[in-house]
Amino acid sequence: MDIKKNRAVVRVPGTSANCGPGFDCLGLAATIYNQLDVTLLRSAKVLVESSGEGSENIPRGKKNLAWQAVRRLLLEVGRENEFKGAFIRTKNQVPLARGLGSSSTAIVGGLVAANEILGAPLNRQQLLKLATELEGHPDNVAPALFGGFTVSVMDGGDVQTFSFLPRIKLKLIVAVPDFELSTRLARKVLPKNISRRDAIFNISRASMLVAALVEGREDLLPPAFDDALHQPYRKKLVPGMTEVFEAAKNAGALGAAISGAGSCLIAFTTTKTKLEEKISSAMVETFKLHGVNAKSLILNVDKRGAKVMKR
Amino acid sequence: MDIKKNRAVVRVPGTSANCGPGFDCLGLAATIYNQLDVTLLRSAKVLVESSGEGSENIPRGKKNLAWQAVRRLLLEVGRENEFKGAFIRTKNQVPLARGLGSSSTAIVGGLVAANEILGAPLNRQQLLKLATELEGHPDNVAPALFGGFTVSVMDGGDVQTFSFLPRIKLKLIVAVPDFELSTRLARKVLPKNISRRDAIFNISRASMLVAALVEGREDLLPPAFDDALHQPYRKKLVPGMTEVFEAAKNAGALGAAISGAGSCLIAFTTTKTKLEEKISSAMVETFKLHGVNAKSLILNVDKRGAKVMKR
Repeated sequence: MDIKKNRAVVRVPGTSANCGPGFDCLGLAATIYNQLDVTLLRSAKVLVESSGEGSENIPRGKKNLAWQAVRRLLLEVGRENEFKGAFIRTKNQVPLARGLGSSSTAIVGGLVAANEILGAPLNRQQLLKLATELEGHPDNVAPALFGGFTVSVMDGGDVQTFSFLPRIKLKLIVAVPDFELSTRLARKVLPKNISRRDAIFNISRASMLVAALVEGREDLLPPAFDDALHQPYRKKLVPGMTEVFEAAKNAGALGAAISGAGSCLIAFTTTKTKLEEKISSAMVETFKLHGVNAKSLILNVDKRGAKVMKR
Repeated sequence: MDIKKNRAVVRVPGTSANCGPGFDCLGLAATIYNQLDVTLLRSAKVLVESSGEGSENIPRGKKNLAWQAVRRLLLEVGRENEFKGAFIRTKNQVPLARGLGSSSTAIVGGLVAANEILGAPLNRQQLLKLATELEGHPDNVAPALFGGFTVSVMDGGDVQTFSFLPRIKLKLIVAVPDFELSTRLARKVLPKNISRRDAIFNISRASMLVAALVEGREDLLPPAFDDALHQPYRKKLVPGMTEVFEAAKNAGALGAAISGAGSCLIAFTTTKTKLEEKISSAMVETFKLHGVNAKSLILNVDKRGAKVMKR
């Protein structure tokens, strides 16, 4: 068996979902990457080697998420009896369980790598559907797969995604607290029902955010990153959240939001302002005042999405 | 006194708010117009003459909405002691109390006419703020003023609007039932609270609708006109609503929605399909099966908004 034939290396961007008002439907890809080196094996062995961010906490056996994605793809295309295992090596930059889509990198990376090895039996739309099914919602897997900003609509079991590159050159400032936040807990604090008024708050802002980014209307962005649907309930899970948002805006950010379900907070500015360092310091220092140690990442919007690096 | 100096004629488009998912924030202007011929008077007399749609039901005195808008503008710019009355003649094409923004034409027409006569002391953004205050929400007055499609965000007392011409050439098919529906009643049937799931349904679709229209992605439109926030509760006020939607889609429409708070239903297709007559018949016939007599209007998107025709 020619092992090279059964190997693919894929780079997948970290992602930030919600972007303020776009709960479970808006997302963006950022220039921070996890790399997955996947070799399909005939034998039923699953071997995982990880280095980088959070590698000590990544399951090494069949519970590994990238393997589960590989396995799901093998089942989908009816090749599960041919390849029963895999050797997966990952190099991770994306912090784990912080709301930067690390699980989506594993899912998308596993799917794209296995699909590539098998000669691309599925197209990106089909991969998106599998990825959404594995992740439970499309807002991280869509930008991880397509890059840029994404708007996703769940329509019955189908998912439809529009991905675009904003006509505004955004700089992303991410404050990464030193504590993890499980998506399960972050979802548990959300009420099942909300007021119609709060829904309208978010509908109007999500629509405006998309319009402003697609058309390059920076003047319309400031109110468009605000949210009434999830952040008010999650602030107790992220000490100093409101104050970090205010500090970022006072330092010149266009807006700020929880990244996904947290714990990261993300602020937005444009490349031309050169305010990213100032905003970054303001966020980290304000977190500190609330007893939270955080590091910061200054990123751009990833334009490419999941990319096959090597066959 | 030179009476000509104190006169302006303004044409204002009818509008359709919500467009499915964009409750209280999305709207469009259509090629159906009310014309207002306004002369400001020194004396405290208010004279109103109306012809056309619904003219028998339009208040003729100080309760007239166009007069109230004129009066509001006079107060805003401190000229209320100079002009205490007005002679207003309207020619109306927009059906009254059917969800096509007839009250917004009166408000926007009154404001724009008075502003024009006084030498344009207020800009369009300031007129939008006054119009929103008078109407209570921006989703009809914004497209009536700016034309095209509009996304509006209420931010505290301020309103911000983005208006754009869709890159898809839409044809609008409006079925106009022979009964009126008051916005007050149509709002009364709505619950104060909704599920988070329904909010996400609308947030994702409103975002997708805006993205698809701005970018000209017709393929993304079909699920984007659906709504979970108001139409399910209003269908009891519009007999046959769901069936008319289905009939329109079966006849080839991209989507269908209640226009504003009803009673009109609006379906969307593109000019190139030439399906408008077929969709129109399907809607009117289906209404009839449910005991509703309706006429239909086939319209385009108005590109201009409120327009001064004569000084």
